[in-house]
Amino acid sequence: MTIPSLVIGIAGGTGAGKSTVSREITAGLAEGVTHMPLDNYYVAEPGLSFDERRARNYDHPSAFEWELVADHLGSLLSGRPIEMPQYDFETHSRTDERVTVEPTDVVVVEGLFALYDERLTEMQDLRIYVETDADVRILRRIRRDVLERGRELEGVIEQYLSTVKPMHEQFVEPTKRRADLILPEGANSVAISLLQGMVDTEVEEGSRRWERTRARRTDPTVALEYDVD
Amino acid sequence: MTIPSLVIGIAGGTGAGKSTVSREITAGLAEGVTHMPLDNYYVAEPGLSFDERRARNYDHPSAFEWELVADHLGSLLSGRPIEMPQYDFETHSRTDERVTVEPTDVVVVEGLFALYDERLTEMQDLRIYVETDADVRILRRIRRDVLERGRELEGVIEQYLSTVKPMHEQFVEPTKRRADLILPEGANSVAISLLQGMVDTEVEEGSRRWERTRARRTDPTVALEYDVD
Repeated sequence: MTIPSLVIGIAGGTGAGKSTVSREITAGLAEGVTHMPLDNYYVAEPGLSFDERRARNYDHPSAFEWELVADHLGSLLSGRPIEMPQYDFETHSRTDERVTVEPTDVVVVEGLFALYDERLTEMQDLRIYVETDADVRILRRIRRDVLERGRELEGVIEQYLSTVKPMHEQFVEPTKRRADLILPEGANSVAISLLQGMVDTEVEEGSRRWERTRARRTDPTVALEYDVD
Repeated sequence: MTIPSLVIGIAGGTGAGKSTVSREITAGLAEGVTHMPLDNYYVAEPGLSFDERRARNYDHPSAFEWELVADHLGSLLSGRPIEMPQYDFETHSRTDERVTVEPTDVVVVEGLFALYDERLTEMQDLRIYVETDADVRILRRIRRDVLERGRELEGVIEQYLSTVKPMHEQFVEPTKRRADLILPEGANSVAISLLQGMVDTEVEEGSRRWERTRARRTDPTVALEYDVD
């Protein structure tokens, strides 16, 4: 039984490069990393019709089953495997399949809202927000949806402007304030190398040399006590 | 003779916590760190009267002698000591004094514009931007200037609105794009611990396990090639 020693949360907007950051900083771990993509935890809505499901706002935090995410992360942290749900984006529904996922040294929780739910952030040792310009992000999304998946450009643009962008500004972008580190420009080589080194050290040594301390985040008087420069 | 193995640039607005970050991430180094505060490199203006000097805009990049900063950093990187100028903020002038500064393993270049001049950023291995809310920053500045230095509150506010804030938005804030890492909320414990670990490892091992690679920053096609998530 493995008790994970490091939980990393990786958030950021659509096309920010979260998956790339997630993959690259854990590249040295081989099998020693457990990925928890929040996309697997969209709520199951078996009572809704296809049209009703399609009309739902999947960029809103209420589209996720937070209780289940928190339960699953808690289980992994206790060394217990989970039965991770699978989601079918074509039918907008959870499939009947479950995938057994075992805990490993490092757990990465990744998704638009990885820093949104406090039960999750409480369990994270390192919170990363990947910050990439909105124009680069939408171009990546267009490339994926139009060029790779054959969707209509007009529909992609309409969805972006009507839901993706406003939800990002209202719910995703504000979670940047909960981050320990903001990675600019998606995956930059220096930041990735530093984090790789940190993750490798963590796993090699098994015991962390650092812990989160709370004072600075929560005590408003402490916030003013740094040197002015 | 010591050839520095790591050059860190630390930028951010007034009151962001640059000095604190600088001090904390190098706390494990004792004498093994050389600090280059850019405030020492305000241009000498011996030909101007006191009133003329006082009227200058010290929040504009042209207030700094960039040639000298680049020369000095280059000297340190070649293992040669520098004669660092000293600046008197009361008379707004460079003093006659010079302080001999020896190169050490780690050099920290710190100041509003630490990520501004390209000759400097080219020599930096790690570029950090300390991001703190503007309201917290101005409150720290007021505390310093009014409570500690006895300046008039009205004058501090006037200077902030007329120069500090517009110069920040025009010249300081955009340098965030050159950062490898953005540290939110001034000095947060997790980020500081990670960077301390990195700096300590660098000095202990003497040879870096990572180098900056350029492709991602400069090649616009590469910028779009991450996974969309």
